[in-house]
Amino acid sequence: MTASLAGYPHKDLLGIEQLSTQDVRLILDTAESFREVAARPIKKVPTLRGKTVLNLFFESSTRTRSSFEIAEKRMSADSINFSSSGSSLTKGESLLDTTRNLQAMAPDVLVIRHGHPMVPHRLAERVVSRVINAGDGAHEHPTQALLDAFTIRQHKKRLDGLRVAIVGDIEHSRVVRSNVLLLRKMGAEVVIAGPRTMMPVAAEALGASVGGVEVRYRLDEAIEGADVVMMLRIQLERQGRMLMPSTEEYFQLFGLTRDRLTAAKEDAIVMHPGPMNRGVEIASHVADGERSVILEQVTNGVAVRMAVLYLLAGS
Amino acid sequence: MTASLAGYPHKDLLGIEQLSTQDVRLILDTAESFREVAARPIKKVPTLRGKTVLNLFFESSTRTRSSFEIAEKRMSADSINFSSSGSSLTKGESLLDTTRNLQAMAPDVLVIRHGHPMVPHRLAERVVSRVINAGDGAHEHPTQALLDAFTIRQHKKRLDGLRVAIVGDIEHSRVVRSNVLLLRKMGAEVVIAGPRTMMPVAAEALGASVGGVEVRYRLDEAIEGADVVMMLRIQLERQGRMLMPSTEEYFQLFGLTRDRLTAAKEDAIVMHPGPMNRGVEIASHVADGERSVILEQVTNGVAVRMAVLYLLAGS
Amino acid sequence: MTASLAGYPHKDLLGIEQLSTQDVRLILDTAESFREVAARPIKKVPTLRGKTVLNLFFESSTRTRSSFEIAEKRMSADSINFSSSGSSLTKGESLLDTTRNLQAMAPDVLVIRHGHPMVPHRLAERVVSRVINAGDGAHEHPTQALLDAFTIRQHKKRLDGLRVAIVGDIEHSRVVRSNVLLLRKMGAEVVIAGPRTMMPVAAEALGASVGGVEVRYRLDEAIEGADVVMMLRIQLERQGRMLMPSTEEYFQLFGLTRDRLTAAKEDAIVMHPGPMNRGVEIASHVADGERSVILEQVTNGVAVRMAVLYLLAGS
Repeated sequence: MTASLAGYPHKDLLGIEQLSTQDVRLILDTAESFREVAARPIKKVPTLRGKTVLNLFFESSTRTRSSFEIAEKRMSADSINFSSSGSSLTKGESLLDTTRNLQAMAPDVLVIRHGHPMVPHRLAERVVSRVINAGDGAHEHPTQALLDAFTIRQHKKRLDGLRVAIVGDIEHSRVVRSNVLLLRKMGAEVVIAGPRTMMPVAAEALGASVGGVEVRYRLDEAIEGADVVMMLRIQLERQGRMLMPSTEEYFQLFGLTRDRLTAAKEDAIVMHPGPMNRGVEIASHVADGERSVILEQVTNGVAVRMAVLYLLAGS
Repeated sequence: MTASLAGYPHKDLLGIEQLSTQDVRLILDTAESFREVAARPIKKVPTLRGKTVLNLFFESSTRTRSSFEIAEKRMSADSINFSSSGSSLTKGESLLDTTRNLQAMAPDVLVIRHGHPMVPHRLAERVVSRVINAGDGAHEHPTQALLDAFTIRQHKKRLDGLRVAIVGDIEHSRVVRSNVLLLRKMGAEVVIAGPRTMMPVAAEALGASVGGVEVRYRLDEAIEGADVVMMLRIQLERQGRMLMPSTEEYFQLFGLTRDRLTAAKEDAIVMHPGPMNRGVEIASHVADGERSVILEQVTNGVAVRMAVLYLLAGS
Repeated sequence: MTASLAGYPHKDLLGIEQLSTQDVRLILDTAESFREVAARPIKKVPTLRGKTVLNLFFESSTRTRSSFEIAEKRMSADSINFSSSGSSLTKGESLLDTTRNLQAMAPDVLVIRHGHPMVPHRLAERVVSRVINAGDGAHEHPTQALLDAFTIRQHKKRLDGLRVAIVGDIEHSRVVRSNVLLLRKMGAEVVIAGPRTMMPVAAEALGASVGGVEVRYRLDEAIEGADVVMMLRIQLERQGRMLMPSTEEYFQLFGLTRDRLTAAKEDAIVMHPGPMNRGVEIASHVADGERSVILEQVTNGVAVRMAVLYLLAGS
């Protein structure tokens, strides 16, 4: 490990908003050194031996929870899972009291997923443990943005000056905000696109704090000249609530096909945070095609989370 | 570890009832030596390496389950969680057959929480594994009483001769019985108090086997001159079933406020087994005040459970 | 470990169907060497240190999941549990995408239980990880058949030439097919018996690929001269659906009692894959009697699963 611990100046990882470009680079560089651990026959380093990590998932999440848990175990940490069902919360205890109680058991790191924005931030102020935001509603999901940036950098060797199109349900996505913040911070151009019903009223204001973000309402315009096309998951459960008439029509207008992808740069890569709806936001031949780096995102997720755990809790 | 294994003469930890004063002292002294493990950067000892601990929670419990799991992992044991949902029990197998089957996999320790009294006792007779009762209905919850005693002893340097008031829903509490037994055994005076609707019919008989326990029906009388005030959780789900008219009225009559606490000794400490209902049985300014040792109870819970695991399964 | 890794020629363990007699012997012999690990004070070997095993249980199963998890931890592997509730599957992602995503996190082994036949087989073709079938509907459950064979061999010193009666709900059992295949392959005679309503239409064809299997519709005829009597669980939830009039009548006709067992050989052993319905398919005095090896099956299950994990993922 060549990364210096002194380099990461924060107690927690709550969002991309709080990170400097130097912080982002430190995390991505550290992740590089952990990426090869997964390729070893013995996928384990003793770095977090004797450290306790509590995974507090107040919303279910297969991939994020598994990714953190695998990262923790590969670092030799003791992982404890805690989900909201079967918890004191159902007995009327406040979230803060639950967290303080868990805190009193002296965990080193709390990984928190919650349906409401800012919950990890508010808890982080009140606990000694390091806090990692594993998604707070549609607000921030910093490890996802970091693993996306890591994957882009791997393929494009840089972030600065790239053109990235993010397409789909912009308003309800868990991942858009952190991605926009990180990409703009690192000098990429960002275009967001989707049907007007899935676009925040103040869409243009999204990335205002870090500079402009282009907004489009047609797929073709959005991916024109893009280096990276990031498709978002459509939440099917929202169907029929005026957001879209049908998945077929959505696919007609915003589904990524091989034909449409020709509008992007020749070497553009295709990303998706998962879980995918094949035939809704993305055609199967694109999802599984040679331009897709979707599974690499998942692989890199473990390395990025190992890096974050190391920077926060490594001795 | 200076504690001698020869010192703990029982196969299991089923209740305070079976313990001698010497056993209690041995557990508390052993817990002292584990308390500092949680303060280390590397919170892990190899004591239970290669031992298997099954956590069988037939009732959900955030804090007790997490506390045991953290204790087990800090001792380097292999922890396996088992909860009743998704188990053979839902396929009609008897509890004894489920336990015998798990036993056949040669776990060293079974930690059992069950809604009915004496279930851990009955299972303990039939399995070779050590059994720790993690709460059997309103009967015994020995590790809770031990961590409470440990916390009191830390602050008061003794148990003998102290006056301890236990206030709230005496009848349905999971923790009263073990606490009364332990405190009386160790020479403390115990007062229990609560509304008549929450008091067992034979309240006075509660501690009969170990000597008298005072019974009061008013908060002020109960905490008069107390060294320790232990507030119990009101189970809100019982509201409206004639036990109490409303939480507001309960707070009026039995809620612990700063004003009321003045009736206790000047250096009295305030305890609560959690989860708390703030503004029902305890005011927030007391729960978070300087007399409160509520979070220390949680911290000490891990140390006490490490001690019990060590005494039962340490090589 | 004297077993040679070169000896196990398959990527996965999907079913008994794919195994040669030599493969079966290799697994059973390897299991012998792991059986003594459970008897040690330190029940742990470093064999799978740094290996990640994902337990994907799309159907709940107390004993199989716990048995695998204990085996994995005793081998020092990192175990991650994944159940279908709270997973991406509930968000409409396909099973294949979920599995590919988990695969991208580079687990070494996937242990898969699924309600539908051939799911582990189809996933195994598409992932690099080793796959162990932990039960695919009523199709195969190879580790169960192997632990049963291991238990029989322990008592009878051979499989070849034994007479094994399998009695009960033949059609819906998760364990019959693998057991028949394995026993026939290893040279045992197999008789299956049960009410006509619980017998597959083409019962006689069951073991056709490996030679004949006798079919009987009366318990007494089935166990006549048997060395092994394997009773199957009746799924009580099927009652009243024309399969059987009542559990009492089922016990009258097919329940194993001490009297009926006299038809078998004098030294016949009694097996049951669990969970048992006492008083339905088996009398309690038989289940707990001296001929019963039911709990040994459970104990051996851990050793057999350790052996399989070793052969698939040992370095």
